[in-house]
Amino acid sequence: MGRWEPNARGRLAQAALELYAEQGFEQTTAAEIAARAGLTERTFFRHFADKREVLFYGTETARDLLARAAAEAPAGAMPMDIVGAGLEALGAMLQENPERVRLRDAIVSANAELRERELIKLAGIAEAMADALRGRGVPEPAASLAAETGIAVFKVAFARWISEPGQPDLPAVLRASAEELRSVLAARATV
Amino acid sequence: MGRWEPNARGRLAQAALELYAEQGFEQTTAAEIAARAGLTERTFFRHFADKREVLFYGTETARDLLARAAAEAPAGAMPMDIVGAGLEALGAMLQENPERVRLRDAIVSANAELRERELIKLAGIAEAMADALRGRGVPEPAASLAAETGIAVFKVAFARWISEPGQPDLPAVLRASAEELRSVLAARATV
Repeated sequence: MGRWEPNARGRLAQAALELYAEQGFEQTTAAEIAARAGLTERTFFRHFADKREVLFYGTETARDLLARAAAEAPAGAMPMDIVGAGLEALGAMLQENPERVRLRDAIVSANAELRERELIKLAGIAEAMADALRGRGVPEPAASLAAETGIAVFKVAFARWISEPGQPDLPAVLRASAEELRSVLAARATV
Repeated sequence: MGRWEPNARGRLAQAALELYAEQGFEQTTAAEIAARAGLTERTFFRHFADKREVLFYGTETARDLLARAAAEAPAGAMPMDIVGAGLEALGAMLQENPERVRLRDAIVSANAELRERELIKLAGIAEAMADALRGRGVPEPAASLAAETGIAVFKVAFARWISEPGQPDLPAVLRASAEELRSVLAARATV
């Protein structure tokens, strides 16, 4: 074990974002990221499996926020309310640093490999959310449907938020999108 | 251009499935797949970019089915009815050969790279579906929400269907899952 580096993960993640934006994801090495953060390459690999993983630094935090929302929801809470509370907490966290989130999103969107990794992380978050709901006694398929639909709403709301320059409130966009989905699902053909 | 090979794509896809099941995806080469199908390696690469793509042979068909459902829906059809009709058509196609679908699913599920590719294909299908809805005049975010939610329902319904040995009717499982989602979304906390 090396010596303790205060907030090494955060410093590496910040250095990686800067370098990916400046010179491109493909062109950047782990050694360069470590050097920019004032750390060694060995420290980089103690914290991240590869240079892709640096961009998914927030996944654990997202899973924790959603798990906490499931744990803290009141006894009578419905599955979609629990999912909604977790996603709003996640939205509130993301908009604390919108420029950083936009920068990261631009880097991920420009690279097919990174988009694939993003989708697998989102699928993992949906599975964790479904687990948490089942842990509260929500039966299947309601637990999986609520979790997968929550991720669907999140994807649509996040895309709206990130494309609007005026920095609207992300939790509010999430709530509005969930309401819109309720309308979409309630509308049946009258023909 | 080589000589015309009747149904070369289908023969290559079938040979690949057999070999992946017999000896594993990692251990199988494009040359072996071509040999099993009685074709040349050059023919393989005329039809598929790599040995992963053989497993996503049905993606184009799925996109076509969904696009056709959107094109053929009556004028008064609601977004979620259009998505549902497309997914049911896809479900009906999949269950024409359930053993083949199960075999393919087992191969894809066992490999992280293939699961990533599957997710990116599903994301592409959702985008194509949203495009088709917008083409019919469905506004945003309703188009994206209906498309992404359709994929969420499909994932949950497909997982239920594939895990049940008695081969239930996949379109019926899809309809039931969509109804279940309507209930999940309609249920609000009473506390």
